[in-house]
Amino acid sequence: MHILAFGEVMLRFTVADKMMLEQCDNLHMTTVGTGVNLLSSLSHFGYDTSILTVLPDNPIGKKAAADLRKLGISDKKIIYQGKSMGSFFVELGQGARPERVTYQDRLSSSFSQMSDKNYNFEKALAGVDIVHICGISLSLTEKTRSAALKLAKMAHEMKKIVCFDFNYRMSLNEDNTHETMKTRYQEMLSYVDTIFGSKRDLTDLLDYQETDEKKLYQQFCQDYQISFFAGSRRTFIDDKKYFEGFLFHHDKIYESSPKELNILDRIGSGDAFASGVITGLLEKWDFVDTLEFAIANSVLAQASMNDSPIFEKQDIFNYLDNKGTNDLIR
Amino acid sequence: MHILAFGEVMLRFTVADKMMLEQCDNLHMTTVGTGVNLLSSLSHFGYDTSILTVLPDNPIGKKAAADLRKLGISDKKIIYQGKSMGSFFVELGQGARPERVTYQDRLSSSFSQMSDKNYNFEKALAGVDIVHICGISLSLTEKTRSAALKLAKMAHEMKKIVCFDFNYRMSLNEDNTHETMKTRYQEMLSYVDTIFGSKRDLTDLLDYQETDEKKLYQQFCQDYQISFFAGSRRTFIDDKKYFEGFLFHHDKIYESSPKELNILDRIGSGDAFASGVITGLLEKWDFVDTLEFAIANSVLAQASMNDSPIFEKQDIFNYLDNKGTNDLIR
Amino acid sequence: MHILAFGEVMLRFTVADKMMLEQCDNLHMTTVGTGVNLLSSLSHFGYDTSILTVLPDNPIGKKAAADLRKLGISDKKIIYQGKSMGSFFVELGQGARPERVTYQDRLSSSFSQMSDKNYNFEKALAGVDIVHICGISLSLTEKTRSAALKLAKMAHEMKKIVCFDFNYRMSLNEDNTHETMKTRYQEMLSYVDTIFGSKRDLTDLLDYQETDEKKLYQQFCQDYQISFFAGSRRTFIDDKKYFEGFLFHHDKIYESSPKELNILDRIGSGDAFASGVITGLLEKWDFVDTLEFAIANSVLAQASMNDSPIFEKQDIFNYLDNKGTNDLIR
Amino acid sequence: MHILAFGEVMLRFTVADKMMLEQCDNLHMTTVGTGVNLLSSLSHFGYDTSILTVLPDNPIGKKAAADLRKLGISDKKIIYQGKSMGSFFVELGQGARPERVTYQDRLSSSFSQMSDKNYNFEKALAGVDIVHICGISLSLTEKTRSAALKLAKMAHEMKKIVCFDFNYRMSLNEDNTHETMKTRYQEMLSYVDTIFGSKRDLTDLLDYQETDEKKLYQQFCQDYQISFFAGSRRTFIDDKKYFEGFLFHHDKIYESSPKELNILDRIGSGDAFASGVITGLLEKWDFVDTLEFAIANSVLAQASMNDSPIFEKQDIFNYLDNKGTNDLIR
Amino acid sequence: MHILAFGEVMLRFTVADKMMLEQCDNLHMTTVGTGVNLLSSLSHFGYDTSILTVLPDNPIGKKAAADLRKLGISDKKIIYQGKSMGSFFVELGQGARPERVTYQDRLSSSFSQMSDKNYNFEKALAGVDIVHICGISLSLTEKTRSAALKLAKMAHEMKKIVCFDFNYRMSLNEDNTHETMKTRYQEMLSYVDTIFGSKRDLTDLLDYQETDEKKLYQQFCQDYQISFFAGSRRTFIDDKKYFEGFLFHHDKIYESSPKELNILDRIGSGDAFASGVITGLLEKWDFVDTLEFAIANSVLAQASMNDSPIFEKQDIFNYLDNKGTNDLIR
Amino acid sequence: MHILAFGEVMLRFTVADKMMLEQCDNLHMTTVGTGVNLLSSLSHFGYDTSILTVLPDNPIGKKAAADLRKLGISDKKIIYQGKSMGSFFVELGQGARPERVTYQDRLSSSFSQMSDKNYNFEKALAGVDIVHICGISLSLTEKTRSAALKLAKMAHEMKKIVCFDFNYRMSLNEDNTHETMKTRYQEMLSYVDTIFGSKRDLTDLLDYQETDEKKLYQQFCQDYQISFFAGSRRTFIDDKKYFEGFLFHHDKIYESSPKELNILDRIGSGDAFASGVITGLLEKWDFVDTLEFAIANSVLAQASMNDSPIFEKQDIFNYLDNKGTNDLIR
Repeated sequence: MHILAFGEVMLRFTVADKMMLEQCDNLHMTTVGTGVNLLSSLSHFGYDTSILTVLPDNPIGKKAAADLRKLGISDKKIIYQGKSMGSFFVELGQGARPERVTYQDRLSSSFSQMSDKNYNFEKALAGVDIVHICGISLSLTEKTRSAALKLAKMAHEMKKIVCFDFNYRMSLNEDNTHETMKTRYQEMLSYVDTIFGSKRDLTDLLDYQETDEKKLYQQFCQDYQISFFAGSRRTFIDDKKYFEGFLFHHDKIYESSPKELNILDRIGSGDAFASGVITGLLEKWDFVDTLEFAIANSVLAQASMNDSPIFEKQDIFNYLDNKGTNDLIR
Repeated sequence: MHILAFGEVMLRFTVADKMMLEQCDNLHMTTVGTGVNLLSSLSHFGYDTSILTVLPDNPIGKKAAADLRKLGISDKKIIYQGKSMGSFFVELGQGARPERVTYQDRLSSSFSQMSDKNYNFEKALAGVDIVHICGISLSLTEKTRSAALKLAKMAHEMKKIVCFDFNYRMSLNEDNTHETMKTRYQEMLSYVDTIFGSKRDLTDLLDYQETDEKKLYQQFCQDYQISFFAGSRRTFIDDKKYFEGFLFHHDKIYESSPKELNILDRIGSGDAFASGVITGLLEKWDFVDTLEFAIANSVLAQASMNDSPIFEKQDIFNYLDNKGTNDLIR
Repeated sequence: MHILAFGEVMLRFTVADKMMLEQCDNLHMTTVGTGVNLLSSLSHFGYDTSILTVLPDNPIGKKAAADLRKLGISDKKIIYQGKSMGSFFVELGQGARPERVTYQDRLSSSFSQMSDKNYNFEKALAGVDIVHICGISLSLTEKTRSAALKLAKMAHEMKKIVCFDFNYRMSLNEDNTHETMKTRYQEMLSYVDTIFGSKRDLTDLLDYQETDEKKLYQQFCQDYQISFFAGSRRTFIDDKKYFEGFLFHHDKIYESSPKELNILDRIGSGDAFASGVITGLLEKWDFVDTLEFAIANSVLAQASMNDSPIFEKQDIFNYLDNKGTNDLIR
Repeated sequence: MHILAFGEVMLRFTVADKMMLEQCDNLHMTTVGTGVNLLSSLSHFGYDTSILTVLPDNPIGKKAAADLRKLGISDKKIIYQGKSMGSFFVELGQGARPERVTYQDRLSSSFSQMSDKNYNFEKALAGVDIVHICGISLSLTEKTRSAALKLAKMAHEMKKIVCFDFNYRMSLNEDNTHETMKTRYQEMLSYVDTIFGSKRDLTDLLDYQETDEKKLYQQFCQDYQISFFAGSRRTFIDDKKYFEGFLFHHDKIYESSPKELNILDRIGSGDAFASGVITGLLEKWDFVDTLEFAIANSVLAQASMNDSPIFEKQDIFNYLDNKGTNDLIR
Repeated sequence: MHILAFGEVMLRFTVADKMMLEQCDNLHMTTVGTGVNLLSSLSHFGYDTSILTVLPDNPIGKKAAADLRKLGISDKKIIYQGKSMGSFFVELGQGARPERVTYQDRLSSSFSQMSDKNYNFEKALAGVDIVHICGISLSLTEKTRSAALKLAKMAHEMKKIVCFDFNYRMSLNEDNTHETMKTRYQEMLSYVDTIFGSKRDLTDLLDYQETDEKKLYQQFCQDYQISFFAGSRRTFIDDKKYFEGFLFHHDKIYESSPKELNILDRIGSGDAFASGVITGLLEKWDFVDTLEFAIANSVLAQASMNDSPIFEKQDIFNYLDNKGTNDLIR
Repeated sequence: MHILAFGEVMLRFTVADKMMLEQCDNLHMTTVGTGVNLLSSLSHFGYDTSILTVLPDNPIGKKAAADLRKLGISDKKIIYQGKSMGSFFVELGQGARPERVTYQDRLSSSFSQMSDKNYNFEKALAGVDIVHICGISLSLTEKTRSAALKLAKMAHEMKKIVCFDFNYRMSLNEDNTHETMKTRYQEMLSYVDTIFGSKRDLTDLLDYQETDEKKLYQQFCQDYQISFFAGSRRTFIDDKKYFEGFLFHHDKIYESSPKELNILDRIGSGDAFASGVITGLLEKWDFVDTLEFAIANSVLAQASMNDSPIFEKQDIFNYLDNKGTNDLIR
């Protein structure tokens, strides 16, 4: 089983020792991105993975590629061109002080400036079973949007399973009208089988009016011939935080139990959930088991540093078996 | 609006990685003090600030001044003289293990050994709207006490707003009688408008007998013609810790709601509260809003490393708007 | 009062910043072991301590000895021979993500390869009041088992107080039959006065059938003429973790109140409890006070980095006095 | 004496422990730039300094401003707008392994995207004696070029001393013709008094043909009415590296003695030299003394971490007095 | 071109900040070994590489595999079995204080305990052009010796190029007679084409009596039908250290010029040389050019942290072009 | 052989990563002092050592005592009293940038404030063979001077060997006249056998006029009945630094060869020399061998971090055997 992800690879700079940017000059650098996080997790679950992206042709790009290999992701399909990567700073949170993310420029990156004509999608898809595309590509530049759609279309036509993650960010689309974005997403949706998103994506971005959750998902999946629609959400009960997931398939909503969160680093929680769901679908697990697994993967990932989950299946099963009460493994 | 603080600047050495002194040789150094913490916060709220203090005329003093500038505090009024700064070690706590502070000598510092005659208070007060004085100066040396009182008197006569923080520490006054300390505080109180302290300061230090809280504050504010008397306190409900504040003004006690604490580093909690209250008074906010703001500033500061708060107003409003449940900002 | 511990000294490598092994190349090294942890705590409670062990005759062995001295343990009885120490990696946990321990080879270490004939036990016991032996020695090699039993026998005959800690680890005994291990423990038990273990040690390892806890302990202590049998356990109530202890003596079970856990680093919790119990017995404290002290020592140790507790008696009393609610000492 | 610098402020990420990017995830972040380095040094020599630049209106921009204040540079003239700063990575060198700099995108930064119309140059120049402009602004964007020229012209007309640093980088101008760049520099040169550059700048960029060094400088200074033309260079004798400087003024070349280099971090060597020269000119020192001072400042800066020199005048005099042989100051 | 290396993978623990083991608890961990170092360098020169080794089936083994992937080495042929890896500590040197290496147990490692019967050598050799075997395998255990010889024989019979590195260590063979070791090496030599070693290996281990260097190499290469015999050595002239190499082929000795050393971390210098030589042979470069390249690779590697070189061809050419005088690349 | 040192124990804060104080907030803390450094080295040479000093009765004092034990120094004679320790900051140097030491207050420390009446010198001297006293005690306070002289007198009367180190620092004696200091030293000298100092100590402090070095030492040793007078000095030849030592005994000057310095951290070079000389005298080595050993110890110490040497005899012999050219030990 080989999974290919297409998307932006970014540098993440985490301020050391839970300090804030103004307080500390020590950073911990990691190589991340929605595709990276997803493939890292899938690779640790035992699948072959590779990423289709563009990295700068300089020591930064080489460093990023080394990091991807370390996460278990093949770097054979990476294109080296240009000089820049998108990056962001992370200040970890504590209690009521939220984790804070500040982005540097993403639009001038090697990835954002790569024309769709310079990709060899056919070659990239050879031997691939599943393709994952992140919605961010629809927001960055005309070039990334065009490449993402082209790849999705081709993969769809080649009968690959196409996964898509809404990942809609208002802040990245201040210059685009609602209609523009809606149209882009609609085109993408016509090619995909498995979708990660939220109710809000359907109502706010795609303008669905339906208020009943089940009917809403039904209508959405019918309209675009989606096989699976899944998502995660966080809830607050008695000052405690919980994480839970749903999966819509064939007119039915499946739900995980809520699992308590004890957050060290929240970023990438959705990617961890998505890789868990994909794993369950690949393994043809019961849907609720799949969701339990996916939420557990995400809860563990949020209790860990960095975006990219590196848990093995057995780590997740251990967590589920002891309901998260174990505090020492030897 | 320009706020001047007079007081001791200290070096803080925090043991790394939540370890204890005997376990670890790595320290993180910061430049702190009641005045520093207060001005850092006020500076980040948008006010002009400067500190009147004495630093050693050597690389340590220069380092401290650079740190103060970084916090947004003007170093133009700093006097460089002598060789030493007071310092303390901090071992961060976890759960039932308390944070621990151990002081090194403070009495031989450049600040503690500076005669009041060597200050040019008149020049220091030029252009200043508010003066803040910390009660620690009444405890250190004859020289610091004399300087603090002289400055308070002069500022009062020049119709500046004088703020004062009790900050009474038994451990710093083992060689002084109760009466000596009481007299010093009484002289200071005759010059000040806005006071930070606790009920215990009034009963234990100033010997008030009144047990009804409101009447006590009424009597105190009347005796010394105090406009505002404010303080914060921590409470414990069901093994959880909360932080809350009060403000007494014109015969009325105003109170904040209690806010849950999740402590990373507790030191400076009172200073964060005080800077919040001063901001509310400067902005002429509703008194309860002022307390909510001040307590929120302190709760966030206690969830952060180091003494000196660096939150902007918007950070506090965000916390208040989402009731502290937000765990990610991007 | 001089306490001697016999046992393995290990190197512990803790991955920095709560990261996992695959995420981080920075390690913090400490020198640990059941005997080390126990003596470190007893040394900080004011007793003379020394360790009887074997360290490699090279810079690693010298480093370990320096660490032991730093913990307050005399290195005068250490034998330097061979080239290797057992070691393990620690990945700290957070919330539902458990702390994880991975051992490297322990059987080829200088300690595991030391023949009992090369020890001078008589000399090692001179001036010693209490001897502590850890059950791990019964599992490692024929040599360590033989040495442990020989030392216990001799100390018993010389009327020293002999303490023993079951510390039975299935994973270390995959090649031994149940009967083999039972016989070894039985021989050891015939020499000892004070035992640390759990109900499960009696039922699973020693094959006791009795289900009533009190009768079980009674029978056990009678069979082997044990003066004190003590143990600790963790419980979970409403998603919270607690730690509590028991002591069986003269037909009676004494129990501590449960104390809430907020874990930074769990390893060594049993050793911290044992050193607390030994202290209470040495000081002839009330048995419940002894357990309260021992559990408090362990709760504080679990809220601290590293295995070896370094709290002084007063630290424990402070915790007990304020019921763990104090969050700042200055 | 107040010196204003106009130019780009950048984030520098230095890989820790002399490692290379692929080897290490720990970075040390500093806030740098030609103007920053120059003002940092001048500020530590006792002059008032401020920077005119654009920083992003987010936590990164605030962090950079805090760093500038720490270096002694006033942040009062900084404009906060946009979202991004230019950045570069530094891998320190050792022996024959050169220090390596890799730039991330600079053209989309807040500074590069700021239109000259949004600056209030008149206000920025109020109270300023000297203006420093870095040649990099002529290469970045049409906007920065336009702003730099406008500022230079206005300052020149207001009779301020205008300093300019060639800082010509081929790599930043791959899309510009030689003539384009020459014209831009020529316009700038018509406004300036004091120039930092090299012989190669005159021959390669400005197309001077003269080979005699003195005549070349004479002609150049005459053509553009330059008062002072200064530069530094490194030489290699017997495998040792030396640093030396020259100053051309009124038909005469002055030269420093060469000083041995022992490099820890080379970046910023030219800025350290320039600030030394400016200081000598301000203080009206003998020209050779000025060069000795400037080269010494740069040699010390190259023996220190980071770009921005923080030596005081006395540090430089000490170095010159003992000819660099002193290895301990207490 | 695919190069396979067979050999031990080890953990290296470097004491931080040039401190000694007794001084510092902070370690930097890397995954190393002769085969690892060689493949890392070859991978960065653009060749496909994979390692045949055994790693523990636990988080340490997974961490090591991740590190290998990061270095560009395929982990597809790694066998996971057992629990332990060999390890060593490194204390970096400075001036006259030598770098110091202290080994922990290597004989109980997963690699040392793997029987030759459990390898599938045929499968491992599929698609491989060159096999590299390190002499250490002849010293560790009967199992590693047997596996190394079996693999060499099979590769030789399959007409693969077999490279071998003497790497003879007295300290690893204290229990073996001279004749035993000589016989083992002689068998190995009968299978190999390219050898890395020194004159001393021939005289001391293989008992050659010839004193003329050229004749000695001639005789040796004839006896075992060796195509290439290469080696490096360090020399001292006027208190300076130099590194130089030789290559013997077809009755002729080729030599590099000596290159000055400025050592940051010396370990792996021979492996860097070997990978340079292999590269030159693969590329069919002139032999002296090959040696210049190989020595340059090693000189740069010794000026870098850690064992495994990560320079690209262009980095080496840059060094050679500017004779090591360049101290900044941007 | 038991050596007791009397003197001040200080905290040393070293700025990390060769940065300067203004550049970096990360410090590495060590426990140092002339007596500490000397005993650390002697302890690593195999002698029993203990220190007579006063440490604060708080976590800082406990930390310092733990550090001393780690260095191999007995803490049994330490007195815990007061609250403060002297401290200093160290900025490491590089090339022409000198290492810089900045002291914080030393006069208010527990040691400086301890009255001679509170020491039990008789008990402290029991079992001691050699007493070392540092000249700093004659400069600090009336109390330390009085204690040092009383101890020297008593040790002299008890026929112990008394060693003394001039360690005269102008900066510590700005308030004392030349005559005062001379008288203090003269009294001390009347009790001592072995002295460490320089020619300048005799001419500048003790007013000797003799210019011939041999006659000067002769006269000095006769006047005070000194057995051994030894000292070290640094010389500069061709831009290289060397270290060398002399020993005067029975009318003869013995000298070491000069040894090249490659400094990482210079502080404590004199203490390393002194401990080497004491070792040679104790072992009754040839005087030149003694000096070679002492200079080698100091050269290695200056090539290491921190003040306190931790080399074993064999380390020094290795250095001497290979004339400092070895750069790897395994």
